[in-house]
Amino acid sequence: NKDWILGVSMQVYMSENGALPRLGKVLTADTMNANVKKVDYAVRGPIVQRAVQIEKELKEGVKKPFEEVIKANIGDAHAMGQRPITFFRQVMALCTYPLLLDDNKFPEDVKNRARRILQSCGGNSIGAYTTSQGIDCVRHDVANYIQRRDGGIPSDPDNIYLTTGASDGIVTILKLLNTGEGRTRTGVMISIPQYPLYSASIAELGAVQVNYYLNEEKCWSLDISELQRSLQAAREHCNPSVLCIINPGNPTGQVQSRQCIEDVIQFAAKENLFLMADEVYQDNVYAEGCEFHSFKKVLFEMGPEYSSKVELASFHSTSKCYMGECGFRGGYMEVINMDPEVKAQLTKLVSVRLCPPAPGQALMDLVVNSPQPGEPSHQTFMKVALAEKAKLTEQILNTVPGISCNPVQGAMYSFPRITLPERSINEAKAKGQAPDMFYCMKLLEETGICLVPGSGFGQREGTYHFRMTILPPTDKLKTLLNKLKEFHQKFTQQYS
Amino acid sequence: NKDWILGVSMQVYMSENGALPRLGKVLTADTMNANVKKVDYAVRGPIVQRAVQIEKELKEGVKKPFEEVIKANIGDAHAMGQRPITFFRQVMALCTYPLLLDDNKFPEDVKNRARRILQSCGGNSIGAYTTSQGIDCVRHDVANYIQRRDGGIPSDPDNIYLTTGASDGIVTILKLLNTGEGRTRTGVMISIPQYPLYSASIAELGAVQVNYYLNEEKCWSLDISELQRSLQAAREHCNPSVLCIINPGNPTGQVQSRQCIEDVIQFAAKENLFLMADEVYQDNVYAEGCEFHSFKKVLFEMGPEYSSKVELASFHSTSKCYMGECGFRGGYMEVINMDPEVKAQLTKLVSVRLCPPAPGQALMDLVVNSPQPGEPSHQTFMKVALAEKAKLTEQILNTVPGISCNPVQGAMYSFPRITLPERSINEAKAKGQAPDMFYCMKLLEETGICLVPGSGFGQREGTYHFRMTILPPTDKLKTLLNKLKEFHQKFTQQYS
Ligand SMILES: Cc1ncc(COP(=O)(O)O)c(C=O)c1O
Ligand SMILES: Cc1ncc(COP(=O)(O)O)c(C=O)c1O
Repeated sequence: NKDWILGVSMQVYMSENGALPRLGKVLTADTMNANVKKVDYAVRGPIVQRAVQIEKELKEGVKKPFEEVIKANIGDAHAMGQRPITFFRQVMALCTYPLLLDDNKFPEDVKNRARRILQSCGGNSIGAYTTSQGIDCVRHDVANYIQRRDGGIPSDPDNIYLTTGASDGIVTILKLLNTGEGRTRTGVMISIPQYPLYSASIAELGAVQVNYYLNEEKCWSLDISELQRSLQAAREHCNPSVLCIINPGNPTGQVQSRQCIEDVIQFAAKENLFLMADEVYQDNVYAEGCEFHSFKKVLFEMGPEYSSKVELASFHSTSKCYMGECGFRGGYMEVINMDPEVKAQLTKLVSVRLCPPAPGQALMDLVVNSPQPGEPSHQTFMKVALAEKAKLTEQILNTVPGISCNPVQGAMYSFPRITLPERSINEAKAKGQAPDMFYCMKLLEETGICLVPGSGFGQREGTYHFRMTILPPTDKLKTLLNKLKEFHQKFTQQYS
Repeated sequence: NKDWILGVSMQVYMSENGALPRLGKVLTADTMNANVKKVDYAVRGPIVQRAVQIEKELKEGVKKPFEEVIKANIGDAHAMGQRPITFFRQVMALCTYPLLLDDNKFPEDVKNRARRILQSCGGNSIGAYTTSQGIDCVRHDVANYIQRRDGGIPSDPDNIYLTTGASDGIVTILKLLNTGEGRTRTGVMISIPQYPLYSASIAELGAVQVNYYLNEEKCWSLDISELQRSLQAAREHCNPSVLCIINPGNPTGQVQSRQCIEDVIQFAAKENLFLMADEVYQDNVYAEGCEFHSFKKVLFEMGPEYSSKVELASFHSTSKCYMGECGFRGGYMEVINMDPEVKAQLTKLVSVRLCPPAPGQALMDLVVNSPQPGEPSHQTFMKVALAEKAKLTEQILNTVPGISCNPVQGAMYSFPRITLPERSINEAKAKGQAPDMFYCMKLLEETGICLVPGSGFGQREGTYHFRMTILPPTDKLKTLLNKLKEFHQKFTQQYS
């Protein structure tokens, strides 16, 4: 390390002269938190950094074989051109600038929503800190939403914590669970492929990542025998105490059956695992024959033997579904069967950062409490259909020799498997790159399409994938898919 | 632990019957992360919880010796009745609901600001995720602000990270610095009294808290000899590598002199300490003869020997100053002389949570870039004067025998010392309460005034204090101070 050597020699020099001693930097790659160094976050990694750079180059007039960068690396509806939902934004504008409450441009239901939210804010302003667990009336509305969604199974507002996006809630629960040393260290079971927030947070906390593989051959389903294998292996070297499930899946787009969820809950009960159910895509289910079943509902339908025992945290967000309001960083979690002492600790822990953003909380309220038929704003409130895009993606990709794509049942991504020629794999390895990173980087340079390599999410050894979001407008999505097809054929030829 | 015993006996019973084994909970006070248990956060602790309860009781018609709870426990301007600044809220409303850009109710400069912010958002929507470091144009505006503030000393937008309130930035930098085990464990030097975010984050990370005491006799000033003492003592058992300064001070309200800041920088350079300068109250300086000097500016004025070497992170927020927009969770940090590899790690780390809230980022932009004379909105843009309230607080409190209050030079709190009768101290100890917690709890029950006991911030052994914000409207502040005076006299009599 150049810096360090320089630091030391300077120190000797300066001390001999009696002047200010000059040590190296305090904080260097060598002295910093080693867990942070282990963190990986592919969705915003080198591919995306290069894409941003290419955009700048295009602006500066650098010639490329394409006109624009198409970022299909992240599930960000507005960035892909989806318009915000009028009702949401009207209420938010009134909360922000309450003088607009006197403007007859806005429908009555919009005004009533804004008034109700403002009344539960300190000083009637969303500029005040809220309680750390989140605004009271929002937590009540969330509980009512869950109760409706789950066919009347009760939800207690005291179990609802509003969060800064779902990310914040997930990290907070992992923090509570993180303990032990060596063989007693907390093991966190996550699916492979996974959403990289999980592996990143586990690395940062110094917990142990315990992988279980989804079954690509069966449309990314979850096999209990694989959970069992994974758990047994992990118990040799750590203390696996928490099982994370993403349903509908990211990056894999599958939707779990009710039976599968019941099996998972039974498994968690038997093996004494805390369940974390990442259900941020609960409104993004569109394949025929698929339906969203919440872990909470299935748990309670399994009877008191389970519903009074299994510890569960479920996460939701304003970022996904039909609203796609990522920038507001709204979210909630519901905790079930959490030990009261632990809950008190959780409440204390979240208070250290004061509160989640108030506008995100207000937006969460609107999401769980959208205009009903008969209310003036019901007409402006339109959900976006992704089913067609999901089908289109699957169909076009499956026409390409060397690409095979499972049906996209839910969420907003496809995660197709790609066959890479041996020569390209060798060339990638010689460069110290994952073979699918090599592929995606070439794709970006030649077509402007920005995808995330499968290696960023995890995949079975020797298989290669990429993740692409299906969110672009249909026209653009078609262009993207056809360019991809062409590229893949060319790439395969070039390296065969 | 009742729960645990129940769990174990159930397990035996169930196993004998061959049914589902029933272990205790996975996550209990005994099994959870022990560092989280050590976290303390007084500003939102038991006093505040009781205050919320009393408010509910009042609403339900329970008779109390007072009509309302006055929450002077937290620096939250809007909750105290301060009106949001029109200009800020107009721009934010337009960013939220861009159709208002066509409304001639809004001044041109408001529209231009909103357009500029929207243009740098993905899909022109604040509902899109932003880059993890924060919106480009906002980071540029922040850098320009710093440069103006510091008399032209350059600021690089690449060194600016937008954050979810200052809290987020502070925790993130502490995370990077946190390393080692036992005697090599990172020691974090913090002032006593301190803002409890620091002790809480240090506890959560498992780092070592290293106290240095501010000099109450000299208006809470910082003595280098005390820093030296504290550092030397800490080196016996850990690796102190970071020095945190809050200027202007919370809870102590002092403003540091330029000389003091220079001495601190010299000390940090000599002892190889990373500097964290919490400057969220930089616009809240009102005592005559006091002025805000940023650490960055003083560092660069000390010449290249220092400015090219000392590592510094400085924090700012939308929550404080004249705007008091706490609920939006906006903030930034500037990092100086950070090792490039560490900076890359920092950028990666913040990307795991995707981005800070976009509305908070937009607001930060307006704060650092407020309307200038000549712009249409300059007139509606009025700063609030706290100088009068600071004087009033100091004057009234110092008329009470047994209360002694330093001048409030900056920030928005006073931290008076109180003399407590021996008998009250004994009674508190018998109850297992800190004596100033006992005092504040009684004050709350009898008068409805909610303050935070000094023990929540740290204080010299055997001294007692409370923190109160000076933000309430002048009328209410006078009532509060007079009630406090009366209470203190009664309390002293009762326990003498
Ligand atoms: C499965 C999953 N969980 C959590 C998140 C985090 O979302 P946010 O923090 O924006 O709510 C995402 C975002 O893409 C996700 O895909
Ligand atoms: C000294 C100090 N630093 C940081 C903060 C955190 O403020 P925020 O996270 O709202 O920006 C506060 C809040 O009171 C404070 O007083």
